[in-house]
Amino acid sequence: MDGTSHKLVQVPPGVQCFVGDEARRRRLIEEAVISVFEGWDYQEIIPPLFDYADVFASRALASKTYSFVGRDGSLLALRPDFTSLLAKIAAGRLAQREAPIRLYYSGEVLRYEPPQAGRQSELFQMGLEHLGGDARAADSEILAIAAECLSALGARDWVLAVGHVGVFGGLLAGGSWEEAVVERLRARVEAKDPAGVRDVLAGVDVSTQVAEAIVGLTGWAGDGSVLEVAEAAVAFLPEARQAVAELKEVVSALKAAGLADHVAVDLAEVRGLDYYTGLVFRAYAPGLGFEVGGGGRYDALLARFGRPLPAVGFMFGLDRLALLLDRQGAFPHPPPLEARLVEGDSLGLALRQARRERAQGVRVRLADGGKR
Amino acid sequence: MDGTSHKLVQVPPGVQCFVGDEARRRRLIEEAVISVFEGWDYQEIIPPLFDYADVFASRALASKTYSFVGRDGSLLALRPDFTSLLAKIAAGRLAQREAPIRLYYSGEVLRYEPPQAGRQSELFQMGLEHLGGDARAADSEILAIAAECLSALGARDWVLAVGHVGVFGGLLAGGSWEEAVVERLRARVEAKDPAGVRDVLAGVDVSTQVAEAIVGLTGWAGDGSVLEVAEAAVAFLPEARQAVAELKEVVSALKAAGLADHVAVDLAEVRGLDYYTGLVFRAYAPGLGFEVGGGGRYDALLARFGRPLPAVGFMFGLDRLALLLDRQGAFPHPPPLEARLVEGDSLGLALRQARRERAQGVRVRLADGGKR
Repeated sequence: MDGTSHKLVQVPPGVQCFVGDEARRRRLIEEAVISVFEGWDYQEIIPPLFDYADVFASRALASKTYSFVGRDGSLLALRPDFTSLLAKIAAGRLAQREAPIRLYYSGEVLRYEPPQAGRQSELFQMGLEHLGGDARAADSEILAIAAECLSALGARDWVLAVGHVGVFGGLLAGGSWEEAVVERLRARVEAKDPAGVRDVLAGVDVSTQVAEAIVGLTGWAGDGSVLEVAEAAVAFLPEARQAVAELKEVVSALKAAGLADHVAVDLAEVRGLDYYTGLVFRAYAPGLGFEVGGGGRYDALLARFGRPLPAVGFMFGLDRLALLLDRQGAFPHPPPLEARLVEGDSLGLALRQARRERAQGVRVRLADGGKR
Repeated sequence: MDGTSHKLVQVPPGVQCFVGDEARRRRLIEEAVISVFEGWDYQEIIPPLFDYADVFASRALASKTYSFVGRDGSLLALRPDFTSLLAKIAAGRLAQREAPIRLYYSGEVLRYEPPQAGRQSELFQMGLEHLGGDARAADSEILAIAAECLSALGARDWVLAVGHVGVFGGLLAGGSWEEAVVERLRARVEAKDPAGVRDVLAGVDVSTQVAEAIVGLTGWAGDGSVLEVAEAAVAFLPEARQAVAELKEVVSALKAAGLADHVAVDLAEVRGLDYYTGLVFRAYAPGLGFEVGGGGRYDALLARFGRPLPAVGFMFGLDRLALLLDRQGAFPHPPPLEARLVEGDSLGLALRQARRERAQGVRVRLADGGKR
């Protein structure tokens, strides 16, 4: 490269770059999703790209946050997610606005990823948050919106897999559990590994009833009928029973609304225990081995910002959506745009002609030099 | 705030946040500008938010770049502008693409600003770059595009003030100038302060002819006729004469294209001497005391990335455009969107009704709880 530094040629790991038709397709996917969000009366928030690091103090993201010292000496951080920023804005700038508040966002987040992980440091996310108001209606509404987005994009055979962290939480509520044990248990439940769950529980003082119910979580997946089984199995624990009842109400509303074919129950969805407080879900579709989006209820977050409000939200990853639609052959890549070549007897006349065509809405390409 | 940390309430200096209709108006302005860029056959680039710090090694921005160490030990920087990134992409990823290459971008840049400066650290910019090809045609084309953007947005009485750094550069070319003197001179020329220019020149060994021409730069502003005056005054210096001739060609093409009323010559435009190499311009309009955008020719930049290509580009600041349009009463704020309130005998029936309305394209708002 004629002595050009390699830094001027290579791309740092984890960053992204899109050109031309690829950028245009991403923009069209974004527009389709945003249009659904707006169709349900959600308002856009364009939050800052960085804020005080304290704002993003979630345990799950702490190690992935890019932080730096601002000129005023404060520790700042690039946003690793949008939810905390929206919670802060709802509690601060929108403090006078009555709940329920419906907000959406679309933009990039930045995460510190080890280079060898092969993960993106830059992620483009589109999501929404429903703050305050009746919780079951809000849970059902955001699932219906996620469904409409996938449908509007032409995705096929997608499923919203819904769970409720309160079932697992309720099963643990009676005992005194070490954090490490809970984490191992959570991981085994999520892996749908009943033998692994039994291994972890072997060293713990826990009733057979509770142990069997925790093992049960690994298998209670499928249509709404598994909720009857779960309900009976956890009937002896009020908190877990309440969680199942909440999930039943949401699943039943989605069925009544015509979404039965796209909703699956999965009580092994127990991620984000330090953050989620109720319903959780992930959106899956054939062609992609991981979820294209997901979310859940986080009733404790807004109190941190001084305005206790229940809340539920979800987001789609734009890269994942684009990849899924590619693999399914849905949302075809837009054809290259055609432009009319404009030239004239002189540069001035060519430019004049180009402006005339533009006034008619024609896409133009000025000939090199403008002249014939 | 019930013991809530002030960091969770305050906003760091220099960051921005837009909500609801304000966000929507910004999106509409962005769409209008992008649509013009695409109408002239420019392709979008979505570059990374950060890259190796070396990429952004422009003198003007060096002190304003947020940099940090990545996990692979490299010094990284948040993009303080787009032009370097697009140059790198054109030289690397698009190396096989034939010139001229037309690219545009729309997104945020980040600049380290002292808190007391009251300047934004986050700026949203929309701009384009024309790489390679006939230089006068490219110069004229990008000015016609900037004009169409302002016109499409409904701005009034805007002017593109065009200059050429080669006139000033040509006048200095013969002598040996100290950098500090050149910088003082540049600042006095740009301030249109002939007495100040004379003060600086008083301590310098320079011919009367050159000195008078440099003083002249402070006054050669107005319609195309000042270019005749300038041409005569710098006729003895080939580089300066060539610069004036280039500017004449562009101004004449813009006139022929019907833009005479919106183009002004201003030879005191001599900013960015370490970067610009030819035509420079700024877009002004009544109601705003500073430019809404601007750009120029930078023929030396792409060689840094291993692909020497002449180039010209410009950008608009979205905040500045929005402010100008506000002050001019142009591009009115969109009226609040109305939504149909949907409720039913049960949550499920309300949700079903909402989905029906959505299928008709109606904007809906689910009643709190869904029930009547």
